[in-house]
Amino acid sequence: MQRYFIQTNAIQGSKIIITGQDYHHIKNVMRMKLGNQVMVCTEKGQSYLAEIIAYTDTEVLLSTINQLQEQVELPVMVTIAQGMVRREKTEEVIRRISELGASSYVSVMMERSIVKIKENDNKKITRYQMIAKEASEQAHRTKIMTVMEPMLFTDFLHQIKQYDLCLVAYEEQGRANDRSLPRVLKGFTGKTILIVIGPEGGFGASEIKSLATTTAKLVGLGPRILRTETAPLYLMSAISYHYELGETNEN
Amino acid sequence: MQRYFIQTNAIQGSKIIITGQDYHHIKNVMRMKLGNQVMVCTEKGQSYLAEIIAYTDTEVLLSTINQLQEQVELPVMVTIAQGMVRREKTEEVIRRISELGASSYVSVMMERSIVKIKENDNKKITRYQMIAKEASEQAHRTKIMTVMEPMLFTDFLHQIKQYDLCLVAYEEQGRANDRSLPRVLKGFTGKTILIVIGPEGGFGASEIKSLATTTAKLVGLGPRILRTETAPLYLMSAISYHYELGETNEN
Repeated sequence: MQRYFIQTNAIQGSKIIITGQDYHHIKNVMRMKLGNQVMVCTEKGQSYLAEIIAYTDTEVLLSTINQLQEQVELPVMVTIAQGMVRREKTEEVIRRISELGASSYVSVMMERSIVKIKENDNKKITRYQMIAKEASEQAHRTKIMTVMEPMLFTDFLHQIKQYDLCLVAYEEQGRANDRSLPRVLKGFTGKTILIVIGPEGGFGASEIKSLATTTAKLVGLGPRILRTETAPLYLMSAISYHYELGETNEN
Repeated sequence: MQRYFIQTNAIQGSKIIITGQDYHHIKNVMRMKLGNQVMVCTEKGQSYLAEIIAYTDTEVLLSTINQLQEQVELPVMVTIAQGMVRREKTEEVIRRISELGASSYVSVMMERSIVKIKENDNKKITRYQMIAKEASEQAHRTKIMTVMEPMLFTDFLHQIKQYDLCLVAYEEQGRANDRSLPRVLKGFTGKTILIVIGPEGGFGASEIKSLATTTAKLVGLGPRILRTETAPLYLMSAISYHYELGETNEN
């Protein structure tokens, strides 16, 4: 069933009003008729089954049938922080980690990033956020992943302590046969995880040094060298595997 | 260090002769000089550190310095069988699963595949194999993933029994909160795993029925709906996480 994300204030009693792009999608792309049903999710993670009861020139009016009890969100909130890479790679990562259940994404300007933070990044963020929304909808999530404004590495370092756990995917740990990841996840009882991934070419030596002075843990992702756009998918999959399929999952 | 895959017969005693595209890459792309070192891997999974000792118009001659002991391959051989999808998506999956350690990939013509097997698929396979080779090299693997010829679903069904384990990623199992995957992997002692993924739109009802009559196990990949190009990455990451990082790994 088609699902749409709405602002909580679009719900008025048992009625829901949808405007803008979603209105266009329902009316002109999906060509839904009165009586057709859709799934509607609020930014707070509530979801409803609703029926189309009227169209105006700019709005579609729905009536809620019932609220749905779904647990499709990861029991932990995962933020992926990635060394800034080209737009196409960023979009690819945003699309996949939205599907895989991440809560937010931020590009961090690192030493080896070949792209820089620019004045007109706002437009990019809007586009990234749209991709995150579409991928979240397709994955049948009840929350949309947030795309944050890009950050300088030095500013980013100060953010780390806000998270209950920070994992740095470091290829040298992988080569050195580091197997700490499952142990770290098993011992973790917090709610927020920050994952740090280098840009193409990896972290600079001084960046790894700086990260090591924080609460961040350097972890390996196996003996093969993963590209910067593959490492986030590995970690998101591992986290889902651990929390959502794992036998020891207490959530 | 740059790594190149060669045929075993390119090694003659302590000398290695590289021709063709790799010759071009070493000489004209990397512009390596005499005395420069590269990593050379044979199709049998042996790898050598080698030094460039001479160039001719068509060949580069290397001398082996020593054989390397590396364990960068998964302890199980994983084949990904995917419902046939468009070329760009196939390429994307081949690239990522090569990185993540898969042994082979095959497209299977399924009910909901929007692309069909064509006469000129040979060219595509050559291109796919090249992508697999490049991705394997970049991931520092010692083996290249094999891309097999596309298959009809009915022919594919007969292949299943050749594998020690067959897992079918089925979204209805995910929705039904199936958590069998870690248990299946934990209990598995064989060497070859076949993973079956539906095309866009998923498996047809009769396909799932046919698969259920074989030794295949239907498994869920968590509560979110993953796209056909994301599911293989989830499973490859989970298998690496289990075998290469897991504490119970005996390999």
